[in-house]
Amino acid sequence: MTRGQFITLEGGEGTGKSTQAARLVARLAARGLDVVHTREPGGSPGAEEIRHIALNGDAGRWSPLTETLLMFASRSDHLEKTIRPALEAGRWVVCDRFADSSRAYQGAGGGAPADLIETLDGAIVGDDQPDLTLIFDLPVEVGLERALARGAAETRFESKGLAFHRRLRDGFLSVAAQHTERCRIIDATGEPDAVSERVWRAIEPILP
Amino acid sequence: MTRGQFITLEGGEGTGKSTQAARLVARLAARGLDVVHTREPGGSPGAEEIRHIALNGDAGRWSPLTETLLMFASRSDHLEKTIRPALEAGRWVVCDRFADSSRAYQGAGGGAPADLIETLDGAIVGDDQPDLTLIFDLPVEVGLERALARGAAETRFESKGLAFHRRLRDGFLSVAAQHTERCRIIDATGEPDAVSERVWRAIEPILP
Repeated sequence: MTRGQFITLEGGEGTGKSTQAARLVARLAARGLDVVHTREPGGSPGAEEIRHIALNGDAGRWSPLTETLLMFASRSDHLEKTIRPALEAGRWVVCDRFADSSRAYQGAGGGAPADLIETLDGAIVGDDQPDLTLIFDLPVEVGLERALARGAAETRFESKGLAFHRRLRDGFLSVAAQHTERCRIIDATGEPDAVSERVWRAIEPILP
Repeated sequence: MTRGQFITLEGGEGTGKSTQAARLVARLAARGLDVVHTREPGGSPGAEEIRHIALNGDAGRWSPLTETLLMFASRSDHLEKTIRPALEAGRWVVCDRFADSSRAYQGAGGGAPADLIETLDGAIVGDDQPDLTLIFDLPVEVGLERALARGAAETRFESKGLAFHRRLRDGFLSVAAQHTERCRIIDATGEPDAVSERVWRAIEPILP
């Protein structure tokens, strides 16, 4: 049994990740691949419960440190119950947000210690690093405008202000620079169809 | 302003910790001390929400690794919102369970990596280690019999079997051996009044 490929989609608010994740899953399935479409925080029943308490309430409800632990608790359950069993069964996994979101949101954005995040990544994710990570990049103002137009129900992060979102974008670009073996930056400007084509060009090298 | 003293009570199921915590708080208050009585997991509104999802459901619901992260997430919020502000205001804090319960339950009992638990303790608890930790010790069979007679509502740990509870007791005794500067073992056999006197003798050296 060949292990499945693990693809993560990352980026700030309003970058179109979720739309593109759905399109990518459909296109991979049309190629005959067995694909699991999942997301973080969440992706397993326990992790969805953690998501609920992590994302709701005031923007300052959890410190970046507490938030980091909640996100990795949710990730640990998600890996154990959903991601690892799927990959081991030869299925592909497309995940909307993963550990790089902790690096960018809690670390670069919130100021949680980078060394703790890396220790947790080693202990929780371990060898199950994504095979390919697409980082959707967009000027901060454009992304926030899109997110506000969408009227997002979970507004904890949307409400954190422009400076936070600039640190977030820089955080994601820094992840891409540090993990060139698995990260590809996707220009998220323009129409969804154009972005989908950029996504597909990034995926083609790992297609069977 | 003199910083308050931070006292934690630790031990397995049915050791009488909670009864003794309440008696200790009353006795300290009768001495004119301003005492905060709190517990883990929980002790702040956010941490209580995490407690709820951590403790309910089947015994195998969370892996020891995920459980470790949930407990430290709850601990982080509890420290930030309840414990540190109280100690800084000169109040004493009596806490029913704290980080040693992670060492014993998730580590020794569940098999979560000890080095990760120590890293988390350093990052989350840091310099706010307890001034005094009372470890309530009891033969495992006696403790479980007491816990079952009490009819505990949260049965996730009570239901884990004798071998687990033996590892738990050994884990707490090992914590006491490794942290002799702050830990005192309390013989929890016998009547509550006798145990209270043992507790008070352990407390006297730190009384003002």
